[in-house]
Amino acid sequence: MSGEALLITTFLDHARDHAPDREIIDYVDGVCVRRSTYREQDARVRRLAGALVTLGVRPGDRVATLAGNHHRHLELYLAVPLAGAVLHTVNLRLEPEEIAYVVDHAEDTVLLLDAALRPAAAPARAARPGMRVVVLDGEPESGELAFEDLVVGGDPFEGPPPRDEDDLAALCYTSGTTGAPKGVAYTHKALYLHTMAAGLADGHAIGRRDRVVHLVAMFHANAWGVPLAAFMVGADQILPGPQPRVADVAAIVERERATYLGMVPTLAVDLVAHARRNGTDLTSLRALVLGGSTPSRELVRAIEEDLAVPAFQGWGMTETSPMATFSRPEPEATPDERYAQIQRQGRLLPGLRWRLVDEDGADVPHDGISRGELLLRGPWVASAYFRGDRPEAFVDGWLRTGDVATIDPEGRLRVVDRVKDLIKSGGEWISSLALEQALLESPGVADVAVVAVPHERWQERPVAVVVPDADGVDTTKVLAALDGRVPRWWCPDRVEIVDALPRTSVGKVDKRRLRGALREAHLGGSHKLGGDDDSREHADHS
Amino acid sequence: MSGEALLITTFLDHARDHAPDREIIDYVDGVCVRRSTYREQDARVRRLAGALVTLGVRPGDRVATLAGNHHRHLELYLAVPLAGAVLHTVNLRLEPEEIAYVVDHAEDTVLLLDAALRPAAAPARAARPGMRVVVLDGEPESGELAFEDLVVGGDPFEGPPPRDEDDLAALCYTSGTTGAPKGVAYTHKALYLHTMAAGLADGHAIGRRDRVVHLVAMFHANAWGVPLAAFMVGADQILPGPQPRVADVAAIVERERATYLGMVPTLAVDLVAHARRNGTDLTSLRALVLGGSTPSRELVRAIEEDLAVPAFQGWGMTETSPMATFSRPEPEATPDERYAQIQRQGRLLPGLRWRLVDEDGADVPHDGISRGELLLRGPWVASAYFRGDRPEAFVDGWLRTGDVATIDPEGRLRVVDRVKDLIKSGGEWISSLALEQALLESPGVADVAVVAVPHERWQERPVAVVVPDADGVDTTKVLAALDGRVPRWWCPDRVEIVDALPRTSVGKVDKRRLRGALREAHLGGSHKLGGDDDSREHADHS
Repeated sequence: MSGEALLITTFLDHARDHAPDREIIDYVDGVCVRRSTYREQDARVRRLAGALVTLGVRPGDRVATLAGNHHRHLELYLAVPLAGAVLHTVNLRLEPEEIAYVVDHAEDTVLLLDAALRPAAAPARAARPGMRVVVLDGEPESGELAFEDLVVGGDPFEGPPPRDEDDLAALCYTSGTTGAPKGVAYTHKALYLHTMAAGLADGHAIGRRDRVVHLVAMFHANAWGVPLAAFMVGADQILPGPQPRVADVAAIVERERATYLGMVPTLAVDLVAHARRNGTDLTSLRALVLGGSTPSRELVRAIEEDLAVPAFQGWGMTETSPMATFSRPEPEATPDERYAQIQRQGRLLPGLRWRLVDEDGADVPHDGISRGELLLRGPWVASAYFRGDRPEAFVDGWLRTGDVATIDPEGRLRVVDRVKDLIKSGGEWISSLALEQALLESPGVADVAVVAVPHERWQERPVAVVVPDADGVDTTKVLAALDGRVPRWWCPDRVEIVDALPRTSVGKVDKRRLRGALREAHLGGSHKLGGDDDSREHADHS
Repeated sequence: MSGEALLITTFLDHARDHAPDREIIDYVDGVCVRRSTYREQDARVRRLAGALVTLGVRPGDRVATLAGNHHRHLELYLAVPLAGAVLHTVNLRLEPEEIAYVVDHAEDTVLLLDAALRPAAAPARAARPGMRVVVLDGEPESGELAFEDLVVGGDPFEGPPPRDEDDLAALCYTSGTTGAPKGVAYTHKALYLHTMAAGLADGHAIGRRDRVVHLVAMFHANAWGVPLAAFMVGADQILPGPQPRVADVAAIVERERATYLGMVPTLAVDLVAHARRNGTDLTSLRALVLGGSTPSRELVRAIEEDLAVPAFQGWGMTETSPMATFSRPEPEATPDERYAQIQRQGRLLPGLRWRLVDEDGADVPHDGISRGELLLRGPWVASAYFRGDRPEAFVDGWLRTGDVATIDPEGRLRVVDRVKDLIKSGGEWISSLALEQALLESPGVADVAVVAVPHERWQERPVAVVVPDADGVDTTKVLAALDGRVPRWWCPDRVEIVDALPRTSVGKVDKRRLRGALREAHLGGSHKLGGDDDSREHADHS
């Protein structure tokens, strides 16, 4: 066999040669602002890669982006690896000081950013005075270059192309709620295989028929790997621009007859409500893939019944490139079985391996009942962090996911908790996630988080922080609704009613912040814990 | 990333862990003789690998099979690579002397064979007296071991497992009609990637929902790669046994509710006729994939309309592992457009690259009209033959396919001829394949081959060898039907009516033999050219 290296840049050639007229479409605030093709994009990407080399970018250099979901960011997804460099997509929701930390840790040599994000980048620029800065839109300010000048003025990249499949192509930092962000560095080979997996009929099944909407933030774990998959198969790609509202997303799907949309459950709840209210036709979607947290049964039902759109769940993490499992219901399942299956995290993608282990590292059975920490390994699973940070997250080449899970005999994963979110009460474990699911299914509850607070006698006890829905709810009702649905001793000692939950930069509930606040005081009936339920924000929390 | 090696043996683990209860089903003469599971198979494969090591098989050794499509052959597909050795699936339709040639060329250390094939193996055994011989079924004769003794007595393989993805896992010889057979050696990595490609939504899309029937001979280019794909996704596998008749195949599909069936067009014609005659319900098939030669429009129409089964075409060769392109009609195509699209060889699988070149090696445009020889390269495309045979089949790492083709601007391949089957008449080229297609669409024609015969004035001229259908046909009718459908100077100088066409060991028309016969004499009205239209034989000609 030819021993061809597995390079993601071959997907650039593939899109140009096999889907030259397929589209790259840009929206801003729900309005289409640009339609282009793979043929046109290919020329831009090659000139851009040439310009990066002229700018001094050398093989292996890290090149940072701080940008929303638009065609220029997409061009960088392939131009940077084509130049032999490593694309570092910086999480634009980090605090400016955290951005400075990751840019400095990665030793980025170039930063390409949206003009609107200049304030967020200021400390990073101060920390790395030699770093070249390119503004993606608008006029460059002093010391900056303009992206379009690079593209227009660049000589097409002449090579040498990346040669080794084990060379790095991309870098993402986790937004871990514990300690400093850790870098996950992706080789060409890992992303190539992950891209193949994204096209599998048993997985996301991204194919040429698709018109994918990139709602998942492009800084977030390679946007779930969907852009590279779209390149590979020549699918149309639709970029909704900065901070799209739910109404914008619905309009884009309807107008463009989009077929694939991935999003977090929180946002999907808003999308369902919007579509029901406005009668939006989303039936062009062949897949609405939920990820980031476990969807409620009612959300899955509403997507499948009210919207008539097939729902799926994908699961993974930055450390797994990120797709690791996919939940595709069995063909013969009844609707009730379907919803339950989609609520599971699903089956392991082929090529990966998993283990469930107890606290001593011993394997626990895959019986659907026994719980253990999930370990993963495989060609697109990290076995170390960038620069060797936090080595305790890996054991014998296996990634410790930090997730507590069960695996049923049929091979379906169910994540039941984060290791650090388990609540130890009187020597027994309470699953904060299971308790949250039960609470979410109670009348009057729109959103909920359960955290542990220290307790003198029981060691820890659960406290529920509840966001009421339009009908409203109170502590008594919340506790009454749990009766008989969870063990009596699981029932929270306190229920706090709040307007919104605090969230991290990628949209997960910030439990560290919640625990801190709860230790200090009751939160009061209408206290805002720093969360922001503006749906403009949720969209790129995914 | 973990840098996990890409080993096909990981699919064995995957099937056991993720689909333990899915089935391996054996049929003989249309009767089910065995039902087993991946769990049971896994234990057998591991003991078998252990037994092979005990037998003296060392990493890198070649282990030959001479066997039909049954579970023991399937077990060897993974047991041999698990032991670190190379599975050499010998074409059981070769002449005994050719079998001796390939076994000797490969230096096989063990031969595992069906008892019925002992006569075919006799010269090979004489040529390699040190080779261990294992009989797969029935009682061992003197000097032979019994397969079941190995499986029952073997200690489960303890390792070390194969370590390097660039190690060889399998070996097939082409049955080339020119010169001696050439070996194509497959690395673990090549087969791993090919298996991923077989699961792509845009390709064969083999998935967990599938129940695949292995009608394609298991000696033939890894049975198109379908068995490994089934392992990877945990699909059910149905083995129809030695020489199944068309009636058996139809009954198996109907009884087992099979979903995927691959076969050559010649056999598909018989299957359609059988199903129509008997009202067989084949609608459980989600895909009937045609390969080996271009199907007629009528065959495609009959599969889709009369059987109500979606038809596809896959194209490739032993040198491409073997899948290189897949023809999946566009979703919005009309029936007529669908049939035309399925008659094309289709789109290149992602990961591969192609070129069309003229006689000087210069690229010709992909305009759907310009013809050139197709060159291929990629992670599962050979860049050399085993032991360096016939180096002229490769140029700068590209495989010269020997096929003349066009590629349209949308990236659809159409193979129009073999380089060696073009007919040069008066300085211009006549496509024997295009002429055959036109003849096949003429009334009264069941099968046809066009070959060149030397001509004093024009250099070469076409001769058509026609097999009439039940309605019958004569020379005048054949020529009249061509009128206006091909250039006048393409019309064959002679039309020979025969009962059947001679075929090679893999079911292709043996044009070398036809040319020889035609040079010697007219064939006469009812001369049999050595072909055998018994459908029991066709089944494993695929």
